[in-house]
Amino acid sequence: MRMLDIITKKRDGNALTKEEIDFFVTGYVKSEIPDYQVAALLMAIYFKGLSEPETINLTLAMANSGEKVDLSMIPGIKIDKHSTGGVGDKTTLIVAPIVASLGVFVPKMSGRGLGFTGGTIDKLDSIPNLQTSMPIDAFVDIVKEVGFSDIGQSENLVPADKKIYSLRDVTATVESLPLIASSIMSKKIASGADCILLDVKCGSGAFMNTLDDSIELAKIMVKIGEHFGKKTVALVTNMDSPLGNAIGNSIEIVEACETLKGKGPSDLTELSIELAANMLNLAGKGSLESCKLMAKRAIADGSAFEKLKAMVKAQNGDISCLEDYSKFSKAKFQYHVKAKSSGFINKIDAKLCGEAAKILGAGRQKKDEKIDCSAGIILHKKVGDRIDSGETIATLYSSSLEKQNDAIKVFSNCTLINDNLNQTFPLIYAKVTSAGIEKF
Amino acid sequence: MRMLDIITKKRDGNALTKEEIDFFVTGYVKSEIPDYQVAALLMAIYFKGLSEPETINLTLAMANSGEKVDLSMIPGIKIDKHSTGGVGDKTTLIVAPIVASLGVFVPKMSGRGLGFTGGTIDKLDSIPNLQTSMPIDAFVDIVKEVGFSDIGQSENLVPADKKIYSLRDVTATVESLPLIASSIMSKKIASGADCILLDVKCGSGAFMNTLDDSIELAKIMVKIGEHFGKKTVALVTNMDSPLGNAIGNSIEIVEACETLKGKGPSDLTELSIELAANMLNLAGKGSLESCKLMAKRAIADGSAFEKLKAMVKAQNGDISCLEDYSKFSKAKFQYHVKAKSSGFINKIDAKLCGEAAKILGAGRQKKDEKIDCSAGIILHKKVGDRIDSGETIATLYSSSLEKQNDAIKVFSNCTLINDNLNQTFPLIYAKVTSAGIEKF
Repeated sequence: MRMLDIITKKRDGNALTKEEIDFFVTGYVKSEIPDYQVAALLMAIYFKGLSEPETINLTLAMANSGEKVDLSMIPGIKIDKHSTGGVGDKTTLIVAPIVASLGVFVPKMSGRGLGFTGGTIDKLDSIPNLQTSMPIDAFVDIVKEVGFSDIGQSENLVPADKKIYSLRDVTATVESLPLIASSIMSKKIASGADCILLDVKCGSGAFMNTLDDSIELAKIMVKIGEHFGKKTVALVTNMDSPLGNAIGNSIEIVEACETLKGKGPSDLTELSIELAANMLNLAGKGSLESCKLMAKRAIADGSAFEKLKAMVKAQNGDISCLEDYSKFSKAKFQYHVKAKSSGFINKIDAKLCGEAAKILGAGRQKKDEKIDCSAGIILHKKVGDRIDSGETIATLYSSSLEKQNDAIKVFSNCTLINDNLNQTFPLIYAKVTSAGIEKF
Repeated sequence: MRMLDIITKKRDGNALTKEEIDFFVTGYVKSEIPDYQVAALLMAIYFKGLSEPETINLTLAMANSGEKVDLSMIPGIKIDKHSTGGVGDKTTLIVAPIVASLGVFVPKMSGRGLGFTGGTIDKLDSIPNLQTSMPIDAFVDIVKEVGFSDIGQSENLVPADKKIYSLRDVTATVESLPLIASSIMSKKIASGADCILLDVKCGSGAFMNTLDDSIELAKIMVKIGEHFGKKTVALVTNMDSPLGNAIGNSIEIVEACETLKGKGPSDLTELSIELAANMLNLAGKGSLESCKLMAKRAIADGSAFEKLKAMVKAQNGDISCLEDYSKFSKAKFQYHVKAKSSGFINKIDAKLCGEAAKILGAGRQKKDEKIDCSAGIILHKKVGDRIDSGETIATLYSSSLEKQNDAIKVFSNCTLINDNLNQTFPLIYAKVTSAGIEKF
């Protein structure tokens, strides 16, 4: 078998066999196939796509490329949750404690921030002493004990995806549905849970900008999950404007705690309840309606917040800061962005908010850059709110005036205020299951 | 400027600017841009193509990437000739002496064999002591003195093409018309001649298999040549079956000599006269008809053959073997392929003939492999000839029985004998000039 023939075959629009896909993935991980041949293949895949069997075979080859998590020691249903990445998306920190508090195990391996989107591990790292890196055994023990753990992905988990993703990032081949789907699902398959809930973000602050693409991606991922015997459901959700009011790291932890205490922003609370209810439903805890009531009760009676504290404690974090937020480090500078006119807020662009937060220090400009956990943006108004000229829309937090000034420039293009309120879009666009697509 | 943005732009079907093309070519030659990013760009070009201005800018960037040949010391018109590569194509060795004998300078830099096609330098190397590698100054001196020289391409000529071609070869991006056109024309531009005659081969034994593709390639190359102020004409010629009767190295030198002595095969003689006449016409030596007569006369009066001998002598080669062919080394084994039925020969497949000759030792199986200059194939019959069962179609020459046996297997699928003679195709399909396309 020759890599040149595999590239040619895909270039000419033909389907690759399982053996050909295994050959390229295995050879690339072993560095027997050079970057330049894989780059050419990825670009051919960008143009010619992958069929469903090819995507499944690619997912399997990647999932098999390294270590796998064995959760068989944990009795009962284990459920995983994945968001394709958005701005202000801290739902994992709310949803996982809710679900775990209701007796369903949530073994969660999360990523770091990518581009203008935040990553759960970066957010968790703002809690003093919290460990997000540990051996798989210790992780499994915490899940078994507490019901929920969230750590960074192990270096040995799906090395093929790490290598292929790095190459896609520099060869303009990120935006390919089958490559995105196989990248995400290979990690879910290797992580060992029984059920998977996918949150496919759609809008300016997401990798998928159109509803058609988002639904298509959701469909592929659900098919892959079900193929490997995992009960898989995807919600396609709105990411045109940031989720909740906080965009950053420690400020998102605070907002997650507030939401678990019943005092969160309405959009974040509503989406979290929906996600948690779908996870509980997938895990066989009852109808979607009854699962929603259970999730709301877990917030109201404090059991979900207690579960978050138990996880932080088990991972050696300082739980006192979850009650006394003043214990988080504070940003040196803050700047209030004022409205230049009066009217209704028709837009707060998620992507530009994410870019501004990144510039403030909440994300990485370069790979491996250190994050400023106190930096970020607090929105005081949301889309649909009325605002008067001179009123504060948002506060920007950072540790440098230069960063602040750069971020103000980006943020200034972020909002749109009109006399009237134009059409607004729902929080959840669609639900994709193996049975079909339900649009809302 | 970032290479990632350039890849993305081309991937999305947008035209690259001159600055972007210069950036990528210069950066790649300096190894500042990695292979994998160029591989991704080449595949994007494969799918999205290059516009005429982009192709011209790429040609210029490549031509400017290294040394250029300065022919200004030579008074009068200098003409270059290029064939896109075929099987049994020894026309350069016939055409260049004819044209030079009529007072037009032919500074020719040739290549080595590629795939199943032969290369003029490999053929010349079968002449004992002939130098095909020398400093540019010495080459220019011979052209000035003799009227004609043929050497291998200098290492420093168009290094961008060497690097990009090697990468295309292993990333399935060879078959792209703008990349083929810019590769060929960058070398023609850097070689410094005033006029260029292109022989675009079309058929099973050529890189272009269809007439449409061949004409398209010819059109692009003529446009590039004219853009750079070179009078450029392309003939699109038939390469479904080998040209002439000899396929190899020393046996092709012998056939070229015989043709210059007026005793060559009719197809080879006819095409050589056409090519030479077009070169003379381009160089302003008169109408195409009068140039044809001049070319025929140069063969008839022996002046063209004398010019070949003068070039071989100037390049230190043994001219005695051009008169006494027994001085060429002889192949150890020969095998007569017999017809299995009687009838008309409808096909002698050029590609399979080329492959068989390569297996016999006339070409390279691997890069940098040594060539057996005595190996090859002599066809005793051509397409259109009648043959009786048991009569010899061809003789295979090699230095190993193993190679001979492997080649017999390939050659056995090469010919088609039927009761009737089906449609045959012309030797020359079309002529492409800046004024338009003339089909024959």
